[in-house]
Amino acid sequence: MKKIVVIGATGTLGQAVSAELKARHEVIEAGATRGTHRVDSTDPASIERLFREIGKVDGVVTTTGKLHFGPLPEMSIEQFWIGLRDKLMGQINVVLAAQQYVNDGGSFTLTSGIVGDEPIRLGANATTVNLALEGFVRGAAIELPRGIRINVVSPTVLTESLDAYAPYFRGFEPVTAQRAALAYLRSVEGAQTGRVYRVGY
Amino acid sequence: MKKIVVIGATGTLGQAVSAELKARHEVIEAGATRGTHRVDSTDPASIERLFREIGKVDGVVTTTGKLHFGPLPEMSIEQFWIGLRDKLMGQINVVLAAQQYVNDGGSFTLTSGIVGDEPIRLGANATTVNLALEGFVRGAAIELPRGIRINVVSPTVLTESLDAYAPYFRGFEPVTAQRAALAYLRSVEGAQTGRVYRVGY
Repeated sequence: MKKIVVIGATGTLGQAVSAELKARHEVIEAGATRGTHRVDSTDPASIERLFREIGKVDGVVTTTGKLHFGPLPEMSIEQFWIGLRDKLMGQINVVLAAQQYVNDGGSFTLTSGIVGDEPIRLGANATTVNLALEGFVRGAAIELPRGIRINVVSPTVLTESLDAYAPYFRGFEPVTAQRAALAYLRSVEGAQTGRVYRVGY
Repeated sequence: MKKIVVIGATGTLGQAVSAELKARHEVIEAGATRGTHRVDSTDPASIERLFREIGKVDGVVTTTGKLHFGPLPEMSIEQFWIGLRDKLMGQINVVLAAQQYVNDGGSFTLTSGIVGDEPIRLGANATTVNLALEGFVRGAAIELPRGIRINVVSPTVLTESLDAYAPYFRGFEPVTAQRAALAYLRSVEGAQTGRVYRVGY
């Protein structure tokens, strides 16, 4: 039994990951606006506060992150920053701040997304941020101390999100959040590091 | 003969790219602190000013960008932002601001680097930023209007930079800036888009 904190635990994906992990582990659920613990991953002080509250953990899972979707010819620099500040640095902030709170041999599991590999219209911000996260994991994996591992899960569009996102993802085969959650288990309970777990493509 | 602006033209790589392009093209050289034209690519107003001065172009090449090198366990969030603000958003700022100044069928050619593919110690910021740039190019290529193309060149370490960087790149085979510059020609004068041109690896 490991002690795992899921940041973004109240989202569609986070709920599914929490549910799967609870079968065998102690899960601490943290959300931006709901959940047992509150954390704003874009605010380093808020992350620090969370880890001082919950103490050391064996695993950190992040399923957070806002992106900007819009046509590139009209995209402002400020709009482009949305994904960098939120989905990208939100998750990197967690790793940088939390590494000292992760036990020897523990793990980080972040979230990117299929748009990193498969660009879509209006998706330049998403493609950039998702590949940046995969780069971060690749770079961090060889530097994290004490056997701490780091991976990233890149799911295709979720069945549960199709109501909102179907027009962006015509012809993409969706997966359920529960199926995507399995990849997080492989990362948390497996032995690999520096890996991208692609789900549904 | 095309009209090409090289942003970062006074750097080691930018000088070599300018020199190669000048054989057949009108080249406008812009640098942060030297060069015919001055531009701070981290400042959108400065980019806008540059393009109002020089007018429409057929190609934009960027060879700019600061990164932070340091051990991940001690890396601060502020240090991580250095590469995002400078090498990543510096180049993306140029694309977002300059797209309206690029003639039909013109091109953007950005610069990433081998550390995106081959992580090194102290390099997590570089790996993240370089892959983010490759993601941006992948995403932007399918959205740029009027047949405008976009590619990125990812060179290995330059022979000219070995004095400063050799300890980070043991066992990496360097290339001269002149050889790396050829990839920029392939991008500017070729027909591909959304491509990463890897040089020396």
